[in-house]
Amino acid sequence: MKREVLFLSACIALLSFASLGTAAAADSKLEKAVRDADAEWSKVAAAKDLDKTVAFYADDAVIFPPNQPAVTNKDGIRNLWKRFLDSFTDISWKTTRVEVAKSGDMAILTGTYEMTMTDGSKDNGKYCEVWQNKADGKWKVGIDMFSSDLPAQPVSPPGPGAAEKK
Amino acid sequence: MKREVLFLSACIALLSFASLGTAAAADSKLEKAVRDADAEWSKVAAAKDLDKTVAFYADDAVIFPPNQPAVTNKDGIRNLWKRFLDSFTDISWKTTRVEVAKSGDMAILTGTYEMTMTDGSKDNGKYCEVWQNKADGKWKVGIDMFSSDLPAQPVSPPGPGAAEKK
Repeated sequence: MKREVLFLSACIALLSFASLGTAAAADSKLEKAVRDADAEWSKVAAAKDLDKTVAFYADDAVIFPPNQPAVTNKDGIRNLWKRFLDSFTDISWKTTRVEVAKSGDMAILTGTYEMTMTDGSKDNGKYCEVWQNKADGKWKVGIDMFSSDLPAQPVSPPGPGAAEKK
Repeated sequence: MKREVLFLSACIALLSFASLGTAAAADSKLEKAVRDADAEWSKVAAAKDLDKTVAFYADDAVIFPPNQPAVTNKDGIRNLWKRFLDSFTDISWKTTRVEVAKSGDMAILTGTYEMTMTDGSKDNGKYCEVWQNKADGKWKVGIDMFSSDLPAQPVSPPGPGAAEKK
């Protein structure tokens, strides 16, 4: 048995060293892939390409927009983005922090966005995106949440009955 | 060499089966731990215990509150929660979905919250929390983001100058 044990130990040691090296390389490769996907997403949204923009979401994705309930299905996500694309003349976002799970199946991206609305007003805020690493190696957005840094503004002009909406 | 190869194959097969079983058990144990931590967090917040509430955050935690910039340090988090605890008479939140990374180092919790404010008004919304599994086995909140489901309400009463704030 002694030879087998020695041989097995050597194999395990070799495998461990090999996996340590590849794990670090895989981490940086995974982080780059999800960063690149997010940058591409910002570009297609700025180009107002509805199909390409919503294609970044996973099938079970949810959006948590401020001041409205969660959007939990593909049609809802498409409708939300259709309204978004009509409401701004310009959008861009920039991820400042990426955390990839050691297993590489999940990544969290946070950053800031800037928008110019069709009425000329500006908005800026922050976001938290949860990305899923799919079996085909493509990263997809599972959870998308964002909110403005600016003070709350009522959706409709203040007037009689506005308070009743809440 | 044939004997060594057979012996090694048998060892690897055994290790694979063993790790599959323990991985599933570990997943469910990790999910329970983070769910329990979140439920406890909701309780200490409802009890208005500032120290215990902020103790759930990791040292590098960030809060992304709506209509204000990100809060990115311990003092800011404590001040934000102090204002929160003064603003409501009642709070509770309930996690509806937990996703733990296969590596067990990261978990995403989403759910809904309900609050009764000191002025008697009600608020409800949704949240996304990113939890980190620390070396000591304790889960801590790394990113905390939430927003109301209700239409936007201005912070100050509408009047001359309100539009200029944006």
